[in-house]
Amino acid sequence: MSDFRWSNPVTVYFGPEQFKELGKVVASYGKRCLMTYGGGSVKRTGLYDKVMGYLKEEDVTVFEKGGVEPNPKISHIREAVAMCKENDIDVLLAVGGGSTIDATKCIAAGACVDFDPWEFIAKHIVPEKALPIVVVLTAAATGSEMNSGGVISNEFTNDKASVRGPVLYPKASFLNPELTYTVPRSQTAAGSFDIMCHILEGWFTTKPPMDMLDEIQKVVIKTVIKYAPVALEKPDDLEARENLMWASSWAMNGFMSSGFGGGGPSNHPMEHQLSAYYDITHGVGLAILFPRWLRYCLNDETLFRYVTYGVDIWGVDPNQDPHDIAEQAIEKTEEFCFKTLGIPSTLTELGINEEHFQEMADKACGPRGAINGFIRLEPKDVVEIYKMCL
Amino acid sequence: MSDFRWSNPVTVYFGPEQFKELGKVVASYGKRCLMTYGGGSVKRTGLYDKVMGYLKEEDVTVFEKGGVEPNPKISHIREAVAMCKENDIDVLLAVGGGSTIDATKCIAAGACVDFDPWEFIAKHIVPEKALPIVVVLTAAATGSEMNSGGVISNEFTNDKASVRGPVLYPKASFLNPELTYTVPRSQTAAGSFDIMCHILEGWFTTKPPMDMLDEIQKVVIKTVIKYAPVALEKPDDLEARENLMWASSWAMNGFMSSGFGGGGPSNHPMEHQLSAYYDITHGVGLAILFPRWLRYCLNDETLFRYVTYGVDIWGVDPNQDPHDIAEQAIEKTEEFCFKTLGIPSTLTELGINEEHFQEMADKACGPRGAINGFIRLEPKDVVEIYKMCL
Repeated sequence: MSDFRWSNPVTVYFGPEQFKELGKVVASYGKRCLMTYGGGSVKRTGLYDKVMGYLKEEDVTVFEKGGVEPNPKISHIREAVAMCKENDIDVLLAVGGGSTIDATKCIAAGACVDFDPWEFIAKHIVPEKALPIVVVLTAAATGSEMNSGGVISNEFTNDKASVRGPVLYPKASFLNPELTYTVPRSQTAAGSFDIMCHILEGWFTTKPPMDMLDEIQKVVIKTVIKYAPVALEKPDDLEARENLMWASSWAMNGFMSSGFGGGGPSNHPMEHQLSAYYDITHGVGLAILFPRWLRYCLNDETLFRYVTYGVDIWGVDPNQDPHDIAEQAIEKTEEFCFKTLGIPSTLTELGINEEHFQEMADKACGPRGAINGFIRLEPKDVVEIYKMCL
Repeated sequence: MSDFRWSNPVTVYFGPEQFKELGKVVASYGKRCLMTYGGGSVKRTGLYDKVMGYLKEEDVTVFEKGGVEPNPKISHIREAVAMCKENDIDVLLAVGGGSTIDATKCIAAGACVDFDPWEFIAKHIVPEKALPIVVVLTAAATGSEMNSGGVISNEFTNDKASVRGPVLYPKASFLNPELTYTVPRSQTAAGSFDIMCHILEGWFTTKPPMDMLDEIQKVVIKTVIKYAPVALEKPDDLEARENLMWASSWAMNGFMSSGFGGGGPSNHPMEHQLSAYYDITHGVGLAILFPRWLRYCLNDETLFRYVTYGVDIWGVDPNQDPHDIAEQAIEKTEEFCFKTLGIPSTLTELGINEEHFQEMADKACGPRGAINGFIRLEPKDVVEIYKMCL
């Protein structure tokens, strides 16, 4: 195991009763609030009115910037940054899922500098200051509610990359599982796989972390496997929704990967190119890529991890040839993604062809020319994996 | 599941490489430091010199208050508080295990008020201010390194109770598993059971928490069952020591008990009376009490939890009568405590008799007249459990 540092300053208010504290918490950071949200769903579900009610009780003046899109766009962030500066905003309130929270992090940093917010991403600038962020989470997926990163798309250059820094942790995140009852089926499926993938990306390593964390990671993966189908079947199942929501936050807040000895994620950089070029749903891209990536990485040195995965996660009979166990584990993963979750199984179904594979692969590998994850992937490997997804 | 709030502001520096940051971190809180520690072990092992070296590099002026005893005493804390006030101390550095850290929390709060520090405990005063605390952990046990409570003994009144409040979280805790290689065998055993007991106290409930947390709790319990014997056998086994150390912190930092629907702990209040009256090792008291408490709480309503405990934790064959499974689970617990860990199995062995049982039971039940845990225990029940331990 490697040394590590753990710190997570986010205060989480979990459950419907805690949600009632929202107004007071926002007001503790200031009386001029910019509220960000996505499409119309927060208005349709009544959440918008509820949040406004809580803020009004505390005499918070609310400015609004709705319309954050999935794969949030830099142009929209620029507009919001201008609003913050013009209106002397004290605090940001993100009401939404990962896209809204990610966008809000970039807005929070952008509001405190004189340069264009895309420079944080393009020039890898770690923000030194940010407006305080409060989150009302409406979808279990990205874990952005409890970490310090945000992924932003530049629609002018087809780039998608992240801004990251300790000042971007939300001050408080309100996690009310009841708010996810109305998440569309396809988004529940994609979000669930995003959670799983956050853990599996790191879990597949030839240098496993501390045993306790290895086992805890398995628990969270199995939590998603158990409860995602329940939430698809019965969207207002509280037990399923609360497990998925808390799994989302912990899959990506740094705890489980503490002392992780492997490389970085592999599927996330490959997927970011897919959604940058084709604006697809992140979790859908991940679910299409992941089983192919598993197949591509399988070799004599990595095999032992597939065996553990098959036996401990999918209940595959351990009394078989390791290669058979690995094959069954990959098949179970495919079955889960494409049958149980009902996610499209190929890029072709999404209207994606090979046209941009080479440039996407080059971008995914970045200036170092490779993705250093479970196994090292160069652009030619990434192209190969993209092709396996057609 | 109940609503909950999660927040933990401690920054953890885990591992030998991170330990090198100690001087800088202490200095970031001020140049006048009071270092607290226990008996002579920190000097014997060379840790004292190492810490002093790190502090000197950063020009920190160090004052010292060694001699913190197990079940830390209020008289010692009063002396340390006076030292803080006389010497204009900026920051406290606790080098030790749970007792040293607990004492340091009370010193940190005491240094910021004009009244006697025992009043925090006697009058249930939540401290509003405290000196910043940095921790160098030398034993995996209490979890004090990552929470906001400290248990203090008043040797004049035989009272033992806690001071608690958000200002008492350590700012930073240095967890270097290598520092626990020299922990004596009996302390490794007692500390390990303390970790287990922190989780099991809450895990035994008729209102289980969120499924994911329930499973994570099982992982941490099994981590201790797996690695405590390894550390006893081979004290410098890094894998065992790092798992036990991280388990210690997470068993008691609030995460696993998030949304826990049951009552408070039962064995801890019963044990605090034992160590208040007889100054025994906390983990030893817990290990003697716990299996008896398990037996005492077993009834038709609680049985299902014993079955899960037996099957999932101890690997008892599930195809048996539930009562047989429960009995075997309790026997496995006794075997682990008294054979594997080698902890004395009776209070009699520690020279304790019934003399004070009634007053201890009254104190354990407190002003409410009962311990509301897994099952409700009145003083007569507590006396009965104490007697079972003879």
